[in-house]
Amino acid sequence: MTPRNDYPSTVAVLGAGSWGTTFAKIVADAGAERRTDVRLWARRPEIAAEINDGHRNTQYLKDTVLPGNLTASADPAEVLKGAELVVLAVPAQTLRAQLRQIRDLIPAGAVVVSLMKGLEVGTDSRMSQVIEQELHWPEDRVAVISGPNLAMEIANRQPTASVVACSDLDTAAWIARACTAPYFRPYTNTDVVGTEIGGIVKNVIALAVGICEGKGMGDNTKASVMTRGLAETTRLALALGGSAETMSGLAGMGDLIATCSSPLSRNHTAGRLLAQGLTLEEVNASMKQTAEGIKSAQAVLDRATQLGVYMPITENVVAVLQGAISVDELGPRLLSRELKSEGVHTP
Amino acid sequence: MTPRNDYPSTVAVLGAGSWGTTFAKIVADAGAERRTDVRLWARRPEIAAEINDGHRNTQYLKDTVLPGNLTASADPAEVLKGAELVVLAVPAQTLRAQLRQIRDLIPAGAVVVSLMKGLEVGTDSRMSQVIEQELHWPEDRVAVISGPNLAMEIANRQPTASVVACSDLDTAAWIARACTAPYFRPYTNTDVVGTEIGGIVKNVIALAVGICEGKGMGDNTKASVMTRGLAETTRLALALGGSAETMSGLAGMGDLIATCSSPLSRNHTAGRLLAQGLTLEEVNASMKQTAEGIKSAQAVLDRATQLGVYMPITENVVAVLQGAISVDELGPRLLSRELKSEGVHTP
Repeated sequence: MTPRNDYPSTVAVLGAGSWGTTFAKIVADAGAERRTDVRLWARRPEIAAEINDGHRNTQYLKDTVLPGNLTASADPAEVLKGAELVVLAVPAQTLRAQLRQIRDLIPAGAVVVSLMKGLEVGTDSRMSQVIEQELHWPEDRVAVISGPNLAMEIANRQPTASVVACSDLDTAAWIARACTAPYFRPYTNTDVVGTEIGGIVKNVIALAVGICEGKGMGDNTKASVMTRGLAETTRLALALGGSAETMSGLAGMGDLIATCSSPLSRNHTAGRLLAQGLTLEEVNASMKQTAEGIKSAQAVLDRATQLGVYMPITENVVAVLQGAISVDELGPRLLSRELKSEGVHTP
Repeated sequence: MTPRNDYPSTVAVLGAGSWGTTFAKIVADAGAERRTDVRLWARRPEIAAEINDGHRNTQYLKDTVLPGNLTASADPAEVLKGAELVVLAVPAQTLRAQLRQIRDLIPAGAVVVSLMKGLEVGTDSRMSQVIEQELHWPEDRVAVISGPNLAMEIANRQPTASVVACSDLDTAAWIARACTAPYFRPYTNTDVVGTEIGGIVKNVIALAVGICEGKGMGDNTKASVMTRGLAETTRLALALGGSAETMSGLAGMGDLIATCSSPLSRNHTAGRLLAQGLTLEEVNASMKQTAEGIKSAQAVLDRATQLGVYMPITENVVAVLQGAISVDELGPRLLSRELKSEGVHTP
C-alpha cells in the first residue's frame, strides 16, 4: 500500500440518501478540527442546494443540522476532484451503471468504501466485487462499512459502533481514524466477505421478522426467527470464505438485531406492510427509499443454491415475494420445520 | 438409563409462578389425549384452589384458561406422589432450602428438570448442580430447559421453540416428547452448562439493556450491548465447558433477544426502573416476581473472576447495583471501552 497521510483531507461521499448523508456528517464531525473537506454528491440539485444553503437534508434527515465542512454538489466531477477517500452510498442495484459513468473521475490511489448492503441481481455479486470489477481497483484499497447503524439514530448523535473491513488492515485503520466521532466508534477487521454478507442477508431476515410482527406474533417468535436467521446467514458466509466470528459480532448479530427491532428499518417496515395485505407493488410505491431485502432476496437464494447452503427463511421469504405462498403461511412454515439440530454446520 | 415408557403419565411441577404454571399447561396440553396427570405445587393454598376450581392462575397468567388435566395442591407430598417427571420452577435462590424439605418425597428414578435461571449466591452454583448435590441425583436424570420463552406469550399460544439439555440425549428426548405442543417446540442437546449459562447471564445483560432504554438510547446502542453481551456470555460458557454453538442458538442468542426486546421481561423492566432513578429497594418492592439478574449478577461476576474471564458489561451492571457508579455512567462506559478486537476468544 502506498504510504499516505494519517487522515484524508478530502473525502467524497456519493449518494445523499439517509445513510450517505449521515456518514458524510460523521466524517465531517470527525474531521472538524482538521478542517476535512467533505463533499456529498446528490443526484438532485435541489438537495445539494439545501445542504449548501441551509445545512440540512430535510427529505432524508428531517431537521438534523449538517456541519459547515460538509458541502454538496450534483456534479460528480466537482465532488470527486482530489478525493483521497471515496465513499459509495448509491442504491445497490444502480452501482455498476453509476461506476461506469464516474470511473474516470475517481483519483488514482483513492481508497473506495462501500456503505451499500445488497447483492447485484443477475450477477449475485457483492458490492465490493462490483467496485473491484468496474474500477479495476486493487482489493487493498476497497473497503466496506457495516454494523448496527440506523441512520436516523446516528444523525441524532445516539452512540453506536460499526465495523470497517478491508483485506489490508492498515487501510481499514486509516478509514476508521477518518470516521471516529464521539458518537460513532468503528472497529476494524479483514473479513470483507462476512461483513458484507451480514449486511445483505439481515435485510431478508428483517422482511421475515416484519411479516411475523405484522401478523401479531410475539417476541419469542421474532427472537427465534432472528436466531435461526443468523444461523443461515453464517452458513452462507462460511461457504463464501467469511468467518463465524464476524457473524457473531456487530456486522452480523448487531446489525441484524438493530434492523429487526427498529420501526425505522425499511426492510422491517416493508415486511409489516406485506403482512397487512399490501401487494409488493404497493409496498414499493409507499416507501421513500428502497427496501433492499426485496431486491436482494432472490440473489441471496441463488448464491445459496449454487453453494448447496440451506437457507429456509430466505427460501420462504422469496416464496412470499414471488406470490408462491401467502404471508399467512410464512410464520407457521418458519417454526414448524423439522430441524434436526439447531447448529450452524449441520442443517 | 433405566428404560421407561414413551411418555410420563404423571408429571409434578413445583412452583406456580408464571413460568411454572405455563410449563405445566404446556405438558398438560401436550398430554391431553394421553390424559397425562399434571400436578402443580403452589406455595399458597388460594392459588391452588383457584387453579382447581376456576382453571386459572389470575395472579400470574391473567385470564388464561388451564387444561382440565392440570390440578394443583399446596401439599408437595400430594403433588410428587408417583411422579415420573419432576419439574422445578421455584425462585433460584430458594432452591437448595426447598429441595432439603422435599427430597424424600421425590420418587426414586424420576427425571428432574430445572426451569430456573440463576446462579446461587454464595456458592455460584448452577441450578442443575444444586439439584445433583441436594438430591444425590445422577446427571443423566437431571435436565434443564431454556430458550426464548416469555411465559405470557406461550400462555397465549404464541408459537415458540426451546432447548431441553441433558447429558443423556435419550432423557432429553423423552422430556422433549412430553412437552411438544402445537405452540411449543423443544429441541434437544447435551450441553447443560451452555444452556444454563445462556439463561443466567441474559438476565444481567437485560438489566444493562433496560437501563440503556430507560436512558433513551436507541436500537443501535441496544443491539451493540446485546452483541457484546452474548460475546461475554460465550466466553464464560466456554470457560465452564459449554459450547459456542449453544450460545449462537435458541438458549443463547434467542433467549437474550426475547428477554431484551420484551416489555414483559422482568429483568428488562427492572433495568428501565433503575434508569428512571428508582433505588434497588424500590425496584424490588415494585415487582411482583423476582428480577433474577439482580440477584445473580454478583455470582456471575465472581465466577468470571475466578476463571479469568473478561465480562465488562456484567462488571458495570454489578457496579450499578452496588451503587458504585450511577445509571448515567453505565451507557457511556459500555460503548467507550477500548476494545482491541470484537471477538469471543480475545477480549
